[in-house]
Amino acid sequence: MAHTTSIKVRFYELDPYNHVNHSAYIQYFESARIELLEEAGIGLPALQEAGYHLVVTELATRFLRSAEMGDRLTVETEVVETRRASSRWRQRMFRGEDLIARQEITAAMTTLDGRPTRFPDEVVARLEPYRSEV
Amino acid sequence: MAHTTSIKVRFYELDPYNHVNHSAYIQYFESARIELLEEAGIGLPALQEAGYHLVVTELATRFLRSAEMGDRLTVETEVVETRRASSRWRQRMFRGEDLIARQEITAAMTTLDGRPTRFPDEVVARLEPYRSEV
Amino acid sequence: MAHTTSIKVRFYELDPYNHVNHSAYIQYFESARIELLEEAGIGLPALQEAGYHLVVTELATRFLRSAEMGDRLTVETEVVETRRASSRWRQRMFRGEDLIARQEITAAMTTLDGRPTRFPDEVVARLEPYRSEV
Amino acid sequence: MAHTTSIKVRFYELDPYNHVNHSAYIQYFESARIELLEEAGIGLPALQEAGYHLVVTELATRFLRSAEMGDRLTVETEVVETRRASSRWRQRMFRGEDLIARQEITAAMTTLDGRPTRFPDEVVARLEPYRSEV
Repeated sequence: MAHTTSIKVRFYELDPYNHVNHSAYIQYFESARIELLEEAGIGLPALQEAGYHLVVTELATRFLRSAEMGDRLTVETEVVETRRASSRWRQRMFRGEDLIARQEITAAMTTLDGRPTRFPDEVVARLEPYRSEV
Repeated sequence: MAHTTSIKVRFYELDPYNHVNHSAYIQYFESARIELLEEAGIGLPALQEAGYHLVVTELATRFLRSAEMGDRLTVETEVVETRRASSRWRQRMFRGEDLIARQEITAAMTTLDGRPTRFPDEVVARLEPYRSEV
Repeated sequence: MAHTTSIKVRFYELDPYNHVNHSAYIQYFESARIELLEEAGIGLPALQEAGYHLVVTELATRFLRSAEMGDRLTVETEVVETRRASSRWRQRMFRGEDLIARQEITAAMTTLDGRPTRFPDEVVARLEPYRSEV
Repeated sequence: MAHTTSIKVRFYELDPYNHVNHSAYIQYFESARIELLEEAGIGLPALQEAGYHLVVTELATRFLRSAEMGDRLTVETEVVETRRASSRWRQRMFRGEDLIARQEITAAMTTLDGRPTRFPDEVVARLEPYRSEV
Protein backbone atom coordinates (compact mmCIF):
# COMPACT_ATOMS: atom_id res chain seq x y z
CA MET A 1 0.00 0.00 0.00
CA ALA A 2 1.32 3.41 -0.87
CA HIS A 3 2.65 5.62 1.89
CA THR A 4 1.03 9.05 1.81
CA THR A 5 2.35 12.34 3.09
CA SER A 6 1.44 15.98 2.77
CA ILE A 7 3.80 18.83 1.84
CA LYS A 8 3.13 22.54 1.89
CA VAL A 9 4.82 24.66 -0.77
CA ARG A 10 7.16 27.31 0.67
CA PHE A 11 7.61 30.75 -0.89
CA TYR A 12 11.36 30.48 -1.46
CA GLU A 13 10.80 27.29 -3.48
CA LEU A 14 8.95 29.26 -6.13
CA ASP A 15 10.97 30.71 -8.96
CA PRO A 16 10.34 33.84 -11.03
CA TYR A 17 7.83 31.84 -13.12
CA ASN A 18 5.71 31.80 -9.94
CA HIS A 19 5.94 28.01 -10.00
CA VAL A 20 7.67 25.62 -7.67
CA ASN A 21 11.10 25.11 -9.24
CA HIS A 22 11.46 21.58 -10.58
CA SER A 23 14.34 20.85 -8.22
CA ALA A 24 11.99 21.37 -5.27
CA TYR A 25 9.78 18.51 -6.53
CA ILE A 26 12.84 16.30 -6.28
CA GLN A 27 13.25 17.46 -2.67
CA TYR A 28 9.57 16.83 -1.89
CA PHE A 29 9.84 13.30 -3.27
CA GLU A 30 12.94 12.69 -1.15
CA SER A 31 11.16 13.94 1.96
CA ALA A 32 8.27 11.57 1.26
CA ARG A 33 10.57 8.55 0.91
CA ILE A 34 12.30 9.43 4.15
CA GLU A 35 8.98 9.69 5.98
CA LEU A 36 8.11 6.23 4.67
CA LEU A 37 11.40 4.90 6.03
CA GLU A 38 10.73 6.52 9.41
CA GLU A 39 7.23 5.11 9.55
CA ALA A 40 8.70 1.70 8.71
CA GLY A 41 11.11 2.00 11.65
CA ILE A 42 14.19 2.24 9.43
CA GLY A 43 14.84 5.97 9.30
CA LEU A 44 18.17 7.18 7.93
CA PRO A 45 19.78 7.65 11.37
CA ALA A 46 18.84 4.06 12.31
CA LEU A 47 20.20 2.77 8.99
CA GLN A 48 23.40 4.73 9.47
CA GLU A 49 23.84 3.34 12.97
CA ALA A 50 23.51 -0.12 11.48
CA GLY A 51 26.23 0.73 8.95
CA TYR A 52 24.13 1.55 5.89
CA HIS A 53 23.52 4.47 3.57
CA LEU A 54 20.63 4.49 1.12
CA VAL A 55 21.74 6.40 -1.96
CA VAL A 56 19.80 7.57 -5.02
CA THR A 57 21.47 6.23 -8.16
CA GLU A 58 18.86 7.04 -10.78
CA LEU A 59 15.66 8.96 -11.16
CA ALA A 60 13.13 9.71 -13.86
CA THR A 61 10.56 12.41 -13.24
CA ARG A 62 7.64 13.79 -15.22
CA PHE A 63 6.32 17.23 -14.41
CA LEU A 64 2.70 17.37 -15.50
CA ARG A 65 1.31 20.50 -13.85
CA SER A 66 2.94 23.35 -12.00
CA ALA A 67 2.65 23.63 -8.24
CA GLU A 68 2.05 27.11 -6.91
CA MET A 69 2.07 29.35 -3.86
CA GLY A 70 -0.06 28.03 -1.03
CA ASP A 71 -0.50 24.58 -2.56
CA ARG A 72 -0.71 21.68 -0.20
CA LEU A 73 0.52 18.62 -2.08
CA THR A 74 0.09 14.95 -1.37
CA VAL A 75 2.87 12.53 -2.20
CA GLU A 76 2.25 8.80 -2.57
CA THR A 77 5.24 6.49 -2.39
CA GLU A 78 5.46 2.78 -3.14
CA VAL A 79 8.34 0.34 -3.27
CA VAL A 80 8.29 -1.42 -6.64
CA GLU A 81 10.96 -3.96 -5.82
CA THR A 82 14.03 -4.60 -3.76
CA ARG A 83 16.79 -6.49 -5.51
CA ARG A 84 20.16 -7.50 -4.09
CA ALA A 85 21.76 -4.12 -3.65
CA SER A 86 19.19 -1.76 -5.08
CA SER A 87 15.55 -0.85 -4.86
CA ARG A 88 13.03 0.78 -7.15
CA TRP A 89 10.41 3.23 -5.92
CA ARG A 90 7.41 4.87 -7.59
CA GLN A 91 6.04 8.18 -6.44
CA ARG A 92 3.18 10.45 -7.43
CA MET A 93 2.41 13.98 -6.35
CA PHE A 94 -1.14 15.34 -6.29
CA ARG A 95 -2.91 18.61 -5.63
CA GLY A 96 -6.35 17.40 -4.70
CA GLU A 97 -7.27 15.01 -7.51
CA ASP A 98 -4.81 16.49 -10.00
CA LEU A 99 -1.63 14.59 -10.73
CA ILE A 100 1.21 17.14 -10.56
CA ALA A 101 4.26 14.93 -11.07
CA ARG A 102 5.40 11.35 -10.95
CA GLN A 103 8.78 9.76 -10.46
CA GLU A 104 10.59 6.44 -10.53
CA ILE A 105 13.80 6.24 -8.59
CA THR A 106 16.44 3.64 -7.93
CA ALA A 107 18.20 3.68 -4.58
CA ALA A 108 21.19 1.53 -3.71
CA MET A 109 22.24 0.26 -0.31
CA THR A 110 25.88 1.01 0.45
CA THR A 111 28.25 0.67 3.36
CA LEU A 112 29.26 3.89 5.10
CA ASP A 113 32.29 4.20 2.83
CA GLY A 114 30.13 3.92 -0.28
CA ARG A 115 30.51 0.32 -1.44
CA PRO A 116 27.30 -1.34 -2.72
CA THR A 117 25.98 -3.97 -0.35
CA ARG A 118 23.00 -6.31 0.00
CA PHE A 119 19.75 -4.95 1.42
CA PRO A 120 19.54 -6.35 4.95
CA ASP A 121 16.63 -8.79 5.32
CA GLU A 122 15.07 -6.66 7.99
CA VAL A 123 14.97 -3.65 5.70
CA VAL A 124 13.37 -5.73 2.95
CA ALA A 125 10.78 -6.99 5.43
CA ARG A 126 9.98 -3.55 6.73
CA LEU A 127 9.51 -2.19 3.22
CA GLU A 128 7.16 -5.05 2.30
CA PRO A 129 3.94 -3.26 3.42
CA TYR A 130 4.69 -0.46 0.94
CA ARG A 131 5.15 -2.76 -2.04
CA SER A 132 3.17 -1.79 -5.10
CA GLU A 133 0.74 -4.43 -6.25
CA VAL A 134 1.55 -4.27 -9.93
CA MET B 1 29.35 21.60 -29.61
CA ALA B 2 28.66 21.15 -25.94
CA HIS B 3 28.48 24.19 -23.73
CA THR B 4 30.76 23.88 -20.71
CA THR B 5 30.50 25.55 -17.34
CA SER B 6 32.10 25.15 -13.94
CA ILE B 7 30.29 24.87 -10.61
CA LYS B 8 31.76 24.91 -7.12
CA VAL B 9 30.07 22.77 -4.48
CA ARG B 10 28.73 24.78 -1.55
CA PHE B 11 28.74 23.47 2.02
CA TYR B 12 24.98 23.75 2.60
CA GLU B 13 24.39 21.56 -0.46
CA LEU B 14 26.03 18.63 1.30
CA ASP B 15 23.83 16.37 3.37
CA PRO B 16 24.69 14.31 6.45
CA TYR B 17 26.20 11.66 4.17
CA ASN B 18 28.88 14.27 3.41
CA HIS B 19 27.80 14.13 -0.23
CA VAL B 20 26.11 16.71 -2.39
CA ASN B 21 22.40 15.94 -2.05
CA HIS B 22 21.00 14.57 -5.31
CA SER B 23 18.57 17.49 -5.62
CA ALA B 24 21.55 19.86 -5.85
CA TYR B 25 22.77 18.04 -8.97
CA ILE B 26 19.41 18.88 -10.53
CA GLN B 27 20.04 22.53 -9.62
CA TYR B 28 23.56 22.45 -11.05
CA PHE B 29 22.23 21.03 -14.32
CA GLU B 30 19.58 23.77 -14.45
CA SER B 31 22.21 26.46 -13.85
CA ALA B 32 24.28 25.05 -16.71
CA ARG B 33 21.35 25.12 -19.15
CA ILE B 34 20.57 28.69 -18.19
CA GLU B 35 24.18 29.72 -18.79
CA LEU B 36 23.99 28.13 -22.24
CA LEU B 37 20.83 30.16 -22.96
CA GLU B 38 22.53 33.36 -21.79
CA GLU B 39 25.59 32.67 -23.90
CA ALA B 40 23.27 32.06 -26.85
CA GLY B 41 21.67 35.46 -26.29
CA ILE B 42 18.31 34.01 -25.25
CA GLY B 43 18.47 34.15 -21.46
CA LEU B 44 15.29 33.59 -19.49
CA PRO B 45 14.58 37.31 -18.99
CA ALA B 46 14.86 37.90 -22.75
CA LEU B 47 12.59 34.92 -23.45
CA GLN B 48 10.08 36.16 -20.90
CA GLU B 49 10.07 39.62 -22.45
CA ALA B 50 9.32 37.98 -25.78
CA GLY B 51 6.40 36.14 -24.18
CA TYR B 52 7.93 32.73 -23.55
CA HIS B 53 8.67 30.42 -20.65
CA LEU B 54 10.92 27.40 -21.03
CA VAL B 55 9.63 24.72 -18.69
CA VAL B 56 11.10 21.34 -17.69
CA THR B 57 8.56 18.60 -18.38
CA GLU B 58 10.68 15.51 -17.92
CA LEU B 59 14.08 14.50 -16.68
CA ALA B 60 16.09 11.33 -16.25
CA THR B 61 19.27 11.45 -14.23
CA ARG B 62 21.93 8.92 -13.31
CA PHE B 63 24.13 9.54 -10.29
CA LEU B 64 27.38 7.68 -10.81
CA ARG B 65 29.74 9.09 -8.20
CA SER B 66 29.21 11.36 -5.24
CA ALA B 67 30.34 14.97 -5.32
CA GLU B 68 31.96 16.24 -2.17
CA MET B 69 33.07 19.30 -0.23
CA GLY B 70 35.39 21.54 -2.20
CA ASP B 71 34.74 19.82 -5.51
CA ARG B 72 34.79 21.96 -8.60
CA LEU B 73 32.55 20.31 -11.17
CA THR B 74 32.30 20.78 -14.90
CA VAL B 75 28.93 20.51 -16.61
CA GLU B 76 28.62 19.87 -20.34
CA THR B 77 25.29 20.64 -21.99
CA GLU B 78 24.10 19.83 -25.49
CA VAL B 79 20.80 20.25 -27.27
CA VAL B 80 19.74 16.89 -28.71
CA GLU B 81 16.81 18.19 -30.71
CA THR B 82 14.18 20.88 -30.87
CA ARG B 83 10.77 19.68 -31.99
CA ARG B 84 7.61 21.79 -32.37
CA ALA B 85 6.92 22.70 -28.77
CA SER B 86 9.60 20.83 -26.91
CA SER B 87 13.33 20.26 -26.80
CA ARG B 88 15.61 17.53 -25.53
CA TRP B 89 18.91 18.23 -23.79
CA ARG B 90 21.77 15.98 -22.68
CA GLN B 91 24.06 16.91 -19.83
CA ARG B 92 27.08 15.41 -18.14
CA MET B 93 28.82 16.40 -14.94
CA PHE B 94 32.51 15.73 -14.36
CA ARG B 95 35.06 16.08 -11.60
CA GLY B 96 38.27 16.20 -13.57
CA GLU B 97 38.03 13.17 -15.87
CA ASP B 98 35.49 11.34 -13.72
CA LEU B 99 31.89 11.27 -14.84
CA ILE B 100 29.78 12.14 -11.78
CA ALA B 101 26.29 12.27 -13.25
CA ARG B 102 24.41 12.49 -16.51
CA GLN B 103 20.97 13.67 -17.40
CA GLU B 104 18.48 13.89 -20.24
CA ILE B 105 15.79 16.49 -19.92
CA THR B 106 12.83 17.62 -21.97
CA ALA B 107 11.86 21.28 -21.84
CA ALA B 108 8.71 22.72 -23.38
CA MET B 109 8.13 26.22 -24.69
CA THR B 110 4.99 27.79 -23.27
CA THR B 111 3.27 31.14 -23.35
CA LEU B 112 3.39 33.17 -20.14
CA ASP B 113 0.10 31.64 -19.03
CA GLY B 114 1.43 28.13 -19.49
CA ARG B 115 0.04 26.95 -22.82
CA PRO B 116 2.47 24.95 -24.99
CA THR B 117 3.64 26.86 -28.03
CA ARG B 118 6.05 26.46 -30.96
CA PHE B 119 9.73 27.17 -30.43
CA PRO B 120 10.37 30.52 -32.13
CA ASP B 121 12.66 30.16 -35.15
CA GLU B 122 15.20 32.50 -33.61
CA VAL B 123 15.47 30.33 -30.52
CA VAL B 124 15.96 27.22 -32.66
CA ALA B 125 18.66 29.03 -34.64
CA ARG B 126 20.46 30.24 -31.55
CA LEU B 127 20.48 26.74 -30.03
CA GLU B 128 21.88 25.24 -33.23
CA PRO B 129 25.58 25.68 -32.25
CA TYR B 130 24.97 23.53 -29.17
CA ARG B 131 23.40 20.63 -31.05
CA SER B 132 24.85 17.25 -30.25
CA GLU B 133 26.38 15.50 -33.23
CA VAL B 134 25.02 12.07 -32.53
CA MET C 1 -1.17 37.16 20.03
CA ALA C 2 1.61 35.24 18.38
CA HIS C 3 0.86 33.23 15.27
CA THR C 4 2.04 29.65 15.62
CA THR C 5 3.01 27.19 12.93
CA SER C 6 4.72 23.83 12.77
CA ILE C 7 7.61 22.88 10.49
CA LYS C 8 9.13 19.49 9.90
CA VAL C 9 12.86 19.32 9.25
CA ARG C 10 13.73 17.84 5.84
CA PHE C 11 16.80 15.68 5.25
CA TYR C 12 18.37 17.86 2.56
CA GLU C 13 18.29 20.82 4.96
CA LEU C 14 20.79 19.10 7.22
CA ASP C 15 24.45 19.69 6.58
CA PRO C 16 27.43 17.44 7.22
CA TYR C 17 27.35 18.49 10.89
CA ASN C 18 24.05 16.56 11.03
CA HIS C 19 22.34 19.82 11.99
CA VAL C 20 19.88 21.93 10.10
CA ASN C 21 22.03 24.46 8.25
CA HIS C 22 21.54 27.95 9.68
CA SER C 23 20.23 29.25 6.36
CA ALA C 24 17.30 26.82 6.63
CA TYR C 25 16.23 28.48 9.89
CA ILE C 26 15.97 31.71 7.93
CA GLN C 27 13.73 29.89 5.45
CA TYR C 28 11.58 28.42 8.24
CA PHE C 29 11.11 31.87 9.75
CA GLU C 30 10.10 33.24 6.34
CA SER C 31 7.60 30.43 5.86
CA ALA C 32 6.08 31.22 9.25
CA ARG C 33 5.66 34.92 8.45
CA ILE C 34 4.02 34.06 5.15
CA GLU C 35 1.57 31.73 6.88
CA LEU C 36 0.69 34.55 9.26
CA LEU C 37 0.01 36.82 6.28
CA GLU C 38 -2.16 34.17 4.64
CA GLU C 39 -4.11 33.62 7.84
CA ALA C 40 -4.59 37.39 8.06
CA GLY C 41 -6.03 37.43 4.55
CA ILE C 42 -3.11 39.37 3.07
CA GLY C 43 -0.99 36.64 1.53
CA LEU C 44 1.79 37.63 -0.85
CA PRO C 45 -0.25 37.02 -4.02
CA ALA C 46 -3.05 39.27 -2.68
CA LEU C 47 -0.51 41.96 -1.74
CA GLN C 48 1.09 41.73 -5.16
CA GLU C 49 -2.27 42.07 -6.87
CA ALA C 50 -2.84 45.21 -4.85
CA GLY C 51 0.53 46.54 -6.02
CA TYR C 52 2.71 45.76 -3.02
CA HIS C 53 5.81 43.75 -2.21
CA LEU C 54 6.85 43.05 1.36
CA VAL C 55 10.64 42.91 1.44
CA VAL C 56 13.06 41.91 4.20
CA THR C 57 15.52 44.73 4.83
CA GLU C 58 17.18 43.59 8.02
CA LEU C 59 17.36 40.57 10.25
CA ALA C 60 19.08 39.53 13.44
CA THR C 61 19.02 35.89 14.43
CA ARG C 62 20.33 33.93 17.39
CA PHE C 63 20.90 30.20 17.05
CA LEU C 64 20.65 28.66 20.50
CA ARG C 65 20.35 24.95 19.88
CA SER C 66 20.76 22.82 16.79
CA ALA C 67 17.74 21.33 15.06
CA GLU C 68 18.12 17.78 13.87
CA MET C 69 16.74 15.02 11.66
CA GLY C 70 13.09 14.28 12.34
CA ASP C 71 12.54 17.37 14.50
CA ARG C 72 9.16 18.97 14.34
CA LEU C 73 9.62 22.63 15.18
CA THR C 74 7.14 25.26 16.24
CA VAL C 75 7.57 28.84 15.11
CA GLU C 76 5.89 31.73 16.90
CA THR C 77 5.61 35.03 15.05
CA GLU C 78 4.51 38.43 16.33
CA VAL C 79 4.39 41.85 14.79
CA VAL C 80 6.29 44.28 17.02
CA GLU C 81 5.27 47.42 15.20
CA THR C 82 4.29 48.84 11.84
CA ARG C 83 5.72 52.23 11.06
CA ARG C 84 5.19 54.26 7.90
CA ALA C 85 7.00 52.11 5.36
CA SER C 86 8.43 49.35 7.48
CA SER C 87 7.48 46.77 10.07
CA ARG C 88 9.30 44.88 12.77
CA TRP C 89 8.61 41.24 13.58
CA ARG C 90 9.79 38.95 16.37
CA GLN C 91 9.99 35.19 15.93
CA ARG C 92 10.94 32.24 18.08
CA MET C 93 11.51 28.63 17.14
CA PHE C 94 10.94 25.79 19.59
CA ARG C 95 11.40 22.05 19.75
CA GLY C 96 8.91 21.12 22.43
CA GLU C 97 9.74 23.48 25.29
CA ASP C 98 13.29 24.19 24.11
CA LEU C 99 14.00 27.48 22.44
CA ILE C 100 16.03 26.69 19.31
CA ALA C 101 16.38 30.13 17.72
CA ARG C 102 14.96 33.61 17.79
CA GLN C 103 14.90 36.39 15.27
CA GLU C 104 13.96 40.02 14.80
CA ILE C 105 13.34 41.16 11.27
CA THR C 106 12.43 44.39 9.56
CA ALA C 107 10.30 44.23 6.42
CA ALA C 108 9.54 47.18 4.18
CA MET C 109 6.52 47.75 2.01
CA THR C 110 7.46 48.63 -1.57
CA THR C 111 5.72 49.20 -4.85
CA LEU C 112 6.18 46.51 -7.49
CA ASP C 113 9.18 48.39 -8.89
CA GLY C 114 10.85 48.49 -5.50
CA ARG C 115 10.20 51.99 -4.16
CA PRO C 116 9.38 52.20 -0.43
CA THR C 117 5.75 53.04 0.23
CA ARG C 118 3.36 53.44 3.16
CA PHE C 119 1.79 50.35 4.69
CA PRO C 120 -1.83 50.36 3.51
CA ASP C 121 -4.25 50.88 6.41
CA GLU C 122 -5.92 47.58 5.72
CA VAL C 123 -2.64 45.72 6.05
CA VAL C 124 -1.93 47.47 9.35
CA ALA C 125 -5.39 46.57 10.59
CA ARG C 126 -5.07 42.93 9.57
CA LEU C 127 -1.71 42.61 11.32
CA GLU C 128 -3.11 44.12 14.53
CA PRO C 129 -4.22 40.78 16.05
CA TYR C 130 -0.62 39.54 15.86
CA ARG C 131 0.87 42.54 17.68
CA SER C 132 3.16 41.68 20.52
CA GLU C 133 2.01 43.02 23.84
CA VAL C 134 5.37 44.22 25.07
CA MET D 1 42.92 42.16 4.71
CA ALA D 2 39.51 41.11 3.54
CA HIS D 3 39.11 37.82 1.70
CA THR D 4 37.27 38.29 -1.59
CA THR D 5 35.24 35.80 -3.56
CA SER D 6 32.81 35.90 -6.44
CA ILE D 7 29.38 34.28 -6.58
CA LYS D 8 27.03 33.93 -9.52
CA VAL D 9 23.31 34.12 -8.86
CA ARG D 10 21.44 30.93 -9.84
CA PHE D 11 17.90 30.97 -11.24
CA TYR D 12 16.34 28.77 -8.56
CA GLU D 13 17.58 31.21 -5.90
CA LEU D 14 15.28 33.91 -7.26
CA ASP D 15 11.79 34.11 -5.85
CA PRO D 16 8.58 35.32 -7.50
CA TYR D 17 9.66 38.91 -6.81
CA ASN D 18 12.41 38.23 -9.37
CA HIS D 19 14.96 38.90 -6.63
CA VAL D 20 17.39 36.60 -4.92
CA ASN D 21 15.51 35.37 -1.85
CA HIS D 22 17.05 36.78 1.32
CA SER D 23 17.90 33.29 2.60
CA ALA D 24 20.21 32.83 -0.41
CA TYR D 25 22.29 35.83 0.71
CA ILE D 26 22.84 33.98 3.97
CA GLN D 27 24.05 31.00 1.94
CA TYR D 28 26.35 33.18 -0.17
CA PHE D 29 27.88 34.67 2.96
CA GLU D 30 28.43 31.18 4.38
CA SER D 31 30.10 30.05 1.16
CA ALA D 32 32.44 33.04 1.33
CA ARG D 33 33.48 32.30 4.92
CA ILE D 34 34.17 28.70 4.01
CA GLU D 35 36.33 29.74 1.07
CA LEU D 36 38.30 31.96 3.44
CA LEU D 37 38.83 29.00 5.77
CA GLU D 38 39.97 26.83 2.87
CA GLU D 39 42.37 29.48 1.65
CA ALA D 40 43.70 29.73 5.21
CA GLY D 41 44.36 25.98 5.23
CA ILE D 42 41.70 25.28 7.85
CA GLY D 43 38.75 24.13 5.77
CA LEU D 44 35.83 22.47 7.53
CA PRO D 45 36.97 18.90 6.76
CA ALA D 46 40.39 19.67 8.26
CA LEU D 47 38.79 21.24 11.33
CA GLN D 48 36.48 18.26 11.72
CA GLU D 49 39.41 15.86 11.50
CA ALA D 50 41.07 17.83 14.28
CA GLY D 51 37.91 17.47 16.36
CA TYR D 52 36.28 20.85 15.81
CA HIS D 53 33.06 22.25 14.42
CA LEU D 54 32.67 25.96 13.67
CA VAL D 55 29.05 26.87 14.31
CA VAL D 56 27.10 30.07 13.62
CA THR D 57 25.51 31.32 16.82
CA GLU D 58 24.34 34.74 15.80
CA LEU D 59 23.97 36.86 12.69
CA ALA D 60 22.77 40.32 11.77
CA THR D 61 22.23 41.14 8.13
CA ARG D 62 21.15 44.25 6.26
CA PHE D 63 19.72 43.89 2.76
CA LEU D 64 20.33 47.16 0.93
CA ARG D 65 19.66 46.36 -2.71
CA SER D 66 18.16 43.36 -4.43
CA ALA D 67 20.33 40.94 -6.37
CA GLU D 68 18.92 39.73 -9.65
CA MET D 69 19.18 37.18 -12.43
CA GLY D 70 22.61 37.00 -13.97
CA ASP D 71 24.28 39.09 -11.27
CA ARG D 72 27.84 38.24 -10.38
CA LEU D 73 28.39 39.29 -6.79
CA THR D 74 31.56 39.88 -4.85
CA VAL D 75 31.71 39.00 -1.17
CA GLU D 76 34.34 40.47 1.14
CA THR D 77 34.94 38.73 4.45
CA GLU D 78 37.01 39.86 7.43
CA VAL D 79 37.57 38.45 10.88
CA VAL D 80 36.77 41.15 13.44
CA GLU D 81 38.04 39.23 16.44
CA THR D 82 38.60 35.80 17.89
CA ARG D 83 37.80 35.48 21.58
CA ARG D 84 38.07 32.35 23.72
CA ALA D 85 35.37 30.21 22.20
CA SER D 86 33.83 32.49 19.63
CA SER D 87 34.71 34.72 16.71
CA ARG D 88 33.13 37.69 15.02
CA TRP D 89 33.13 38.18 11.26
CA ARG D 90 32.12 41.08 9.05
CA GLN D 91 31.00 40.57 5.47
CA ARG D 92 29.89 42.77 2.61
CA MET D 93 28.34 41.84 -0.72
CA PHE D 94 28.77 44.00 -3.81
CA ARG D 95 27.54 44.12 -7.39
CA GLY D 96 30.25 46.17 -9.03
CA GLU D 97 30.60 49.21 -6.78
CA ASP D 98 27.12 48.88 -5.27
CA LEU D 99 26.81 47.54 -1.77
CA ILE D 100 24.05 44.91 -1.84
CA ALA D 101 24.14 43.57 1.70
CA ARG D 102 26.28 43.44 4.79
CA GLN D 103 26.44 41.06 7.71
CA GLU D 104 28.04 40.53 11.08
CA ILE D 105 28.14 36.98 12.35
CA THR D 106 29.37 35.23 15.46
CA ALA D 107 30.69 31.70 15.11
CA ALA D 108 31.60 29.45 18.01
CA MET D 109 34.14 26.67 18.12
CA THR D 110 32.71 23.44 19.48
CA THR D 111 33.82 19.87 19.94
CA LEU D 112 32.22 17.29 17.64
CA ASP D 113 29.50 16.67 20.21
CA GLY D 114 28.62 20.34 20.37
CA ARG D 115 30.30 21.62 23.54
CA PRO D 116 31.92 25.09 23.25
CA THR D 117 35.70 24.95 23.27
CA ARG D 118 38.66 27.31 22.89
CA PHE D 119 39.80 28.33 19.43
CA PRO D 120 43.01 26.37 18.79
CA ASP D 121 46.03 28.66 18.54
CA GLU D 122 46.74 27.49 15.04
CA VAL D 123 43.28 28.50 13.88
CA VAL D 124 43.69 31.94 15.47
CA ALA D 125 47.05 32.34 13.75
CA ARG D 126 45.72 31.29 10.37
CA LEU D 127 42.82 33.73 10.62
CA GLU D 128 45.17 36.61 11.53
CA PRO D 129 45.80 37.72 7.90
CA TYR D 130 42.05 38.30 7.47
CA ARG D 131 41.69 40.49 10.56
CA SER D 132 39.89 43.75 9.97
CA GLU D 133 42.00 46.78 10.77
CA VAL D 134 39.31 48.78 12.50
